[in-house]
Amino acid sequence: MARNKTAFPRDARRRVTIEALEPEVDGGRFPAKATPGEVRVECDAFTDGHDSIGVALLWRREGRRQWSEAPMVFAYNDRWRGRFMALEVGRYEYTIEAWVDHWASWENGMRKWLEANIDVEVHLAMGAELLEHAAARAIHGTGAWGRPSPEDGSLLAEVAQVVGDEDRPAGERAERAFADGVTALMWKHADRSEATRYGIRRLVVDPERARFSAWYELFPRSLGEPGRHGTFRDVEAHLPYVADMGFDVLYLPPIHPIGHTHRKGKNNARVAEPGEPGSPWAIGSEEGGHKSIHPELGTLSDLKRLVRAAREEYGIEVALDVAFQVSPDHPWVRDHPEWFRHRPDGTIAYAENPPKKYEDIYPVDFETEAWESLWLELESVFRHWIEKAGIRLFRVDNPHTKSLRFWEWCVERLKKDHPDAIILSEAFTRPKVMYRLAKLGYTQSYTYFAWRRGRWELEEYFNELANPPVVDFFRPNAWPNTPDILTDQLQTGARPMFLQRLVLAATLAANYGIYGPAFELMESRPREVGKEEYLDSEKYQIRDWDLDKDNIRDPIARVNGIRNENPALQHNRSLRFLGVDNPDMIAYTKWSHANGAPYTYRYLEERPGDDGNLILVVVSLDPWNTQSSMVHLPLDQWGVDPGESLELHDLISDARYVWSGWSNYVEINPHAFPAHIFRVRRSGARDERDRADF
Amino acid sequence: MARNKTAFPRDARRRVTIEALEPEVDGGRFPAKATPGEVRVECDAFTDGHDSIGVALLWRREGRRQWSEAPMVFAYNDRWRGRFMALEVGRYEYTIEAWVDHWASWENGMRKWLEANIDVEVHLAMGAELLEHAAARAIHGTGAWGRPSPEDGSLLAEVAQVVGDEDRPAGERAERAFADGVTALMWKHADRSEATRYGIRRLVVDPERARFSAWYELFPRSLGEPGRHGTFRDVEAHLPYVADMGFDVLYLPPIHPIGHTHRKGKNNARVAEPGEPGSPWAIGSEEGGHKSIHPELGTLSDLKRLVRAAREEYGIEVALDVAFQVSPDHPWVRDHPEWFRHRPDGTIAYAENPPKKYEDIYPVDFETEAWESLWLELESVFRHWIEKAGIRLFRVDNPHTKSLRFWEWCVERLKKDHPDAIILSEAFTRPKVMYRLAKLGYTQSYTYFAWRRGRWELEEYFNELANPPVVDFFRPNAWPNTPDILTDQLQTGARPMFLQRLVLAATLAANYGIYGPAFELMESRPREVGKEEYLDSEKYQIRDWDLDKDNIRDPIARVNGIRNENPALQHNRSLRFLGVDNPDMIAYTKWSHANGAPYTYRYLEERPGDDGNLILVVVSLDPWNTQSSMVHLPLDQWGVDPGESLELHDLISDARYVWSGWSNYVEINPHAFPAHIFRVRRSGARDERDRADF
Repeated sequence: MARNKTAFPRDARRRVTIEALEPEVDGGRFPAKATPGEVRVECDAFTDGHDSIGVALLWRREGRRQWSEAPMVFAYNDRWRGRFMALEVGRYEYTIEAWVDHWASWENGMRKWLEANIDVEVHLAMGAELLEHAAARAIHGTGAWGRPSPEDGSLLAEVAQVVGDEDRPAGERAERAFADGVTALMWKHADRSEATRYGIRRLVVDPERARFSAWYELFPRSLGEPGRHGTFRDVEAHLPYVADMGFDVLYLPPIHPIGHTHRKGKNNARVAEPGEPGSPWAIGSEEGGHKSIHPELGTLSDLKRLVRAAREEYGIEVALDVAFQVSPDHPWVRDHPEWFRHRPDGTIAYAENPPKKYEDIYPVDFETEAWESLWLELESVFRHWIEKAGIRLFRVDNPHTKSLRFWEWCVERLKKDHPDAIILSEAFTRPKVMYRLAKLGYTQSYTYFAWRRGRWELEEYFNELANPPVVDFFRPNAWPNTPDILTDQLQTGARPMFLQRLVLAATLAANYGIYGPAFELMESRPREVGKEEYLDSEKYQIRDWDLDKDNIRDPIARVNGIRNENPALQHNRSLRFLGVDNPDMIAYTKWSHANGAPYTYRYLEERPGDDGNLILVVVSLDPWNTQSSMVHLPLDQWGVDPGESLELHDLISDARYVWSGWSNYVEINPHAFPAHIFRVRRSGARDERDRADF
Repeated sequence: MARNKTAFPRDARRRVTIEALEPEVDGGRFPAKATPGEVRVECDAFTDGHDSIGVALLWRREGRRQWSEAPMVFAYNDRWRGRFMALEVGRYEYTIEAWVDHWASWENGMRKWLEANIDVEVHLAMGAELLEHAAARAIHGTGAWGRPSPEDGSLLAEVAQVVGDEDRPAGERAERAFADGVTALMWKHADRSEATRYGIRRLVVDPERARFSAWYELFPRSLGEPGRHGTFRDVEAHLPYVADMGFDVLYLPPIHPIGHTHRKGKNNARVAEPGEPGSPWAIGSEEGGHKSIHPELGTLSDLKRLVRAAREEYGIEVALDVAFQVSPDHPWVRDHPEWFRHRPDGTIAYAENPPKKYEDIYPVDFETEAWESLWLELESVFRHWIEKAGIRLFRVDNPHTKSLRFWEWCVERLKKDHPDAIILSEAFTRPKVMYRLAKLGYTQSYTYFAWRRGRWELEEYFNELANPPVVDFFRPNAWPNTPDILTDQLQTGARPMFLQRLVLAATLAANYGIYGPAFELMESRPREVGKEEYLDSEKYQIRDWDLDKDNIRDPIARVNGIRNENPALQHNRSLRFLGVDNPDMIAYTKWSHANGAPYTYRYLEERPGDDGNLILVVVSLDPWNTQSSMVHLPLDQWGVDPGESLELHDLISDARYVWSGWSNYVEINPHAFPAHIFRVRRSGARDERDRADF
């Protein structure tokens, strides 16, 4: 019979299997994402038979050689858990190492043999043997620690002697072996020569604002006195308005010169009247392109002043729009015709989605032979604004119409030099493309939030976003409106609908944003019935907003204040939906532990001094009528006795309620306010944990 | 500012992303499993922007250079589907290739421009250009096809001329471009120089019995005349009994010499009385080890005769038990002490799970320095029985207590030489270890079926088993009992419970088995209350079964007959649970399309001549009382109008029912029979599809 040549695998003697690491994105093809703090890691690890295993979590800053290491802890069903602190913004690496831990197996067995009181002598002799081998490894530096430690060696040899000493009572010898110090030394000098090492996984640690931010979009040109084009100076003067509402990112649509050719008029008219400003997304004219500033907005030094004032006086970061498309008047069209696709008649095709035509815009051609110079030029646009104006945040327009491979290359390079950069992907396109852009490096992403309205679709969507694998690479930024999107809900639902969508966006997602002043002024007029375009959209004209008319600035400020004061709302991972009988209402909790630990009293008990912050949100989805329902609490998961009472403080109305038991009654009149945002406290906890929420 | 040296990725210009391939096991680390027939493959594929893409499925036998190829078809949400035929037992490879398909983009655009009647001329010119380029590729053999085809080239050039001919009417030119033949040629000579190629994935195609089999386990030594040790000849004479019940695998516990040292007595007594036979799993004596036959069973030629008779006369395969553990009397202990772990006192530790001790068994030591010779010897045990006795099926005892890495090496080598081998893993251990063994190569696996009894746990478990990723690597073999497992349900539930568990095992899982005659004789006496061991277990003694007493042989034969006649029950992938109001009842469907396509009328309409076979099973989980319920049908998924009527033929009782509408009434008296197994037919279909079930 034909038999294969005997080839033995190199890892033949590695008995431990490591699987199902978390976080892990596409089997390690992409880095996972985090912000400074504790990173929680889990994996499955097991060996054949009944032996114990040791499982260690290893991590390091990218570029370092030396790993830090900590033991992982067995959870259940072959699942192991560990954590490390990643405090610096930048890139880390992590992996798992696991091995058969004969010392732990021996210890487990020994305890059982002692109880059964059989065969103790030979087992003690085996223990002594294991100790002797470890002593030898300690002396020669051949164990896990990798360096000789004669001190540890002689200590272990001494213990070996006691454990192997047949003249002493068995109990005493076992106790000596079981001592904490011995366990630690046996771990330190474990034989890991046949340890299994998992593949190295990468982690991008972004600044905290990547995880928790409130964006405000405005058109600077609408901020001038009536009849005058607004400027960066006007934006600067407007900062208190934005800051008072509690936003910490101010996002400006493109600030570059606007093309003349096929300029769009008011309400997207195909031809602009003389003097009409055009769309800021039709970038480039004889006055410059993506690295220039539209002269009517001001100068580079005005922009720098604005960026500095926003950051230093108000804690607000200015975000710029990056839209890689050009007006026919853009300098690139003249200087780099090779970056555009020319048709047989010599013309460049407009951007189009047949039969729609965007006559004022040319796309760049990523299939050009000159792709290398194109990539470098596009990347340099980001670098320009980072270096010249101190910008750290960007919102990228339509990234899904540009080469995906380009984005991976570009964002990785940018983040290498500027790890504090935050890049938000505007992609409302197909969900898999949206996710792919996040995997490729985008720090935050637009979502389908605007079109998720019923309870089941909100629950389904945000459950997907708040759980692995998505939560490990995709950071949703939820916008109830944008200059492109005035949903029919907002067109018809009036104030209660604006408030409902505000609360949902701001509490379901740790990152959210609004386009103002349209949002706070409850602008609801569409250009056309059945469409989502604003009438008299600022995309095509300068608007003169009456900021003093009826508005929802105060509730916006309140909601942003609640977000800032409650760590529970500053991440997505702990989101849990609650049972609610009324289908027109939705309820969910979030709590302060961003690392994914479930909210339990026990978790807090293990961490004295931890002020676990539990927020319970109930929103009515009906903007017209008062709705009520029983809301069901997962008291068992929380570790709260059904007889205990809970104090609920509504942070919107400042009202206080006492709840007890599994189910409690909630009533919402949307014309008062369409939601409760409760901080939940345990009534009984009047000890040193008094100030804590739980 | 420090800037990285510009390094461009090698795949910079590949615009298409391929993700989420299915089947795929752990990102391709392990092969997926199939049996001869159609293999259905899915993936996500997309590019930036609005361009169309071409997606091709590639496959080949392992070892071949040349790929076969077929286009994949867009399904929804960037998901693409394709299939290929893998008709031979052995190993295949498959992958995906995808590229931006400018011709398809042009065709889509052209149709829209024609409708809108604008800019048609320049688009026709672009089409002509694409055709010319393809013609050049055809002539030079630089397109997808990879070989020159002057014929195709001149045909394409001719079409290019027509499409580019401004003197002809636009409609005529477009029609010429849209012709089927042109589409096919443009695909054949597509520019795939920047195609994205997914990683190569492996597929193991096992014989059909790997997917669909009914196992019967018996102890040959109990088949002798009263007082005489049974032999292979007795088993041969017993074949009609097994065949009449409809089983196609006859599995024998270890057939090797049994050790004397610490031999176990009746009911696992620590000391055997003289003349007691001991446990067949205590393998090895002075009469030989794993390659020897227990003399009282007969000779190698008796075994060969049995194997041949079973296969040729009854279509039954004989499966042997492989248990890599030894009695202290096994020749390996003497000849290869290096394969065992010796304790400080020189003894070898018994197998143990403290404080339990298995004094009649030594484990082998996979950490031995002599592991290479050990691995080879263990592997040679399989080869011995394959080559000497024509065995193709093995059931491996406790594989989870042997090195997992060993199994991957061993099974892969065995299957390379003997691709028709089927190896069943007996591992009731932790679920992740059970799954890992399947990934490592085991053809079939034991399950937790014996302990899944309530509706929700049956549904949860079998949903997990019938869906990706598990269904692609793990083939459940469901056993209601084994010599080790007499569940408390069987101890107390009497005949209705035996029948219930039979129907569940045989219809939920395509592979199932029973341990007889204990099962068909409804043996229900435990050794101890609260334990699952049989009283007077055949593991430790010879039993003299009265095969004529009250039994369930007939219903077993009926159920196996139904399985054989209905392709729906011959695989797991199409399992769907139905809504049932009564929690003491469970209902599910399976249908004949093993490739995972959902059961719909449309699917069948697309395949004239396909006799889709739909089976609906309703089981009462209550062995005592009559239960009834409404059962809810997914008529919308089936594409059946609620007004239509369905004919249900109960293949157990032969009764016929007419159902209509979403919900229908079922009543089950467990003392008559605890289940219905319906074949469902559409009443209306009296055309050429008459004989078909749908």
